[in-house]
Amino acid sequence: MGRCSDAKERLIATAAKLFFERGYTAVGVAEICDEAGLKKGSFYHFFETKNDLVLQAIDCYAQTYRDLIERALQPDRTAREQLVAVLHGVCGLMERRAECEGRMHGCPIGNLALELAHRDEAIRRKLDDVFASWRAAFETVLRRGLERGEFGPLDPVRTAETIVALVQGATLLAKTANDATVVARVVDSVVGLVPSPAVHSATPA
Amino acid sequence: MGRCSDAKERLIATAAKLFFERGYTAVGVAEICDEAGLKKGSFYHFFETKNDLVLQAIDCYAQTYRDLIERALQPDRTAREQLVAVLHGVCGLMERRAECEGRMHGCPIGNLALELAHRDEAIRRKLDDVFASWRAAFETVLRRGLERGEFGPLDPVRTAETIVALVQGATLLAKTANDATVVARVVDSVVGLVPSPAVHSATPA
Repeated sequence: MGRCSDAKERLIATAAKLFFERGYTAVGVAEICDEAGLKKGSFYHFFETKNDLVLQAIDCYAQTYRDLIERALQPDRTAREQLVAVLHGVCGLMERRAECEGRMHGCPIGNLALELAHRDEAIRRKLDDVFASWRAAFETVLRRGLERGEFGPLDPVRTAETIVALVQGATLLAKTANDATVVARVVDSVVGLVPSPAVHSATPA
Repeated sequence: MGRCSDAKERLIATAAKLFFERGYTAVGVAEICDEAGLKKGSFYHFFETKNDLVLQAIDCYAQTYRDLIERALQPDRTAREQLVAVLHGVCGLMERRAECEGRMHGCPIGNLALELAHRDEAIRRKLDDVFASWRAAFETVLRRGLERGEFGPLDPVRTAETIVALVQGATLLAKTANDATVVARVVDSVVGLVPSPAVHSATPA
């Protein structure tokens, strides 16, 4: 067993991995401890319940996406390039995960949302905050594009919400089809939701 | 205990209700039998495993949506009216369920997809077939609209896939926000995906 802080990190990382692979309900505390190479006592030293642990696993997942968004929003890019970079970043992450794991596991935030949002209020609020942060990131890019005259007329709040919905829905269909290419295909439609100032024409095809 | 056929129907209906409320993994065979007022022997008379039961519960859910789509596709409606009727039907179903249950439980097909698609191949295929049937229904309406000159240029296959993704993603966000109005708001964007022949302008706002 490693140092205390190391043990806590290992429990969170192991739980994040197992919850993503099999869901929250299907994975028990004993299994998380076994896989992390720690005793149950360590678990209860750091966490009162499995619920406490999943809240920290959600922070882990959210950090991955925060890093991805930060990398995509390089200031020398146009707003449209930033938008495309975030979406391609998400597709790339999904494809790499599918390659590593041999199948589509979806989005860890979306998975937990559908499994737990109606069963635990603290988890629901935490997941909703993650989605809110994604909506805010898209909204910022859309407002920037509007200010710079890159985009035709659009409502940045509603369009940002629609983009997050589209990415989550595409991920759900991709997981069900076990085919990561669904995400890339549907995400292309996002471009159709963001009109150019000159053309204002937007079909997803 | 009722007649055999009645007992089987009760097991399926009870399982469909409990899986929707709490997910597949969290609900055990003993609980389904208790809630249906039947002995475990009855369960194993009709089903080998809980997996067999969930496949039939999926048929139950799918039937609800088939009925909804059939009602929406009245032949005297324009293609756009049919499209809007399907989408409003889905929103209405979601709102009524949220009202009955006191909170958003999402879409039973989408919930099972994210919980189980990566864990069981038979369930994944069954859920994928349901999504395929929804894509096919939207595709039919889109082709009809194109043939009648109601819609501007669009790819019916890809647009149908995008619509299903959007509805599923909106439902996921609505469940996470515990707010059924998210679905109605995002689903409005679908109208922006289907251009009119004259205007060809489509922003979701």
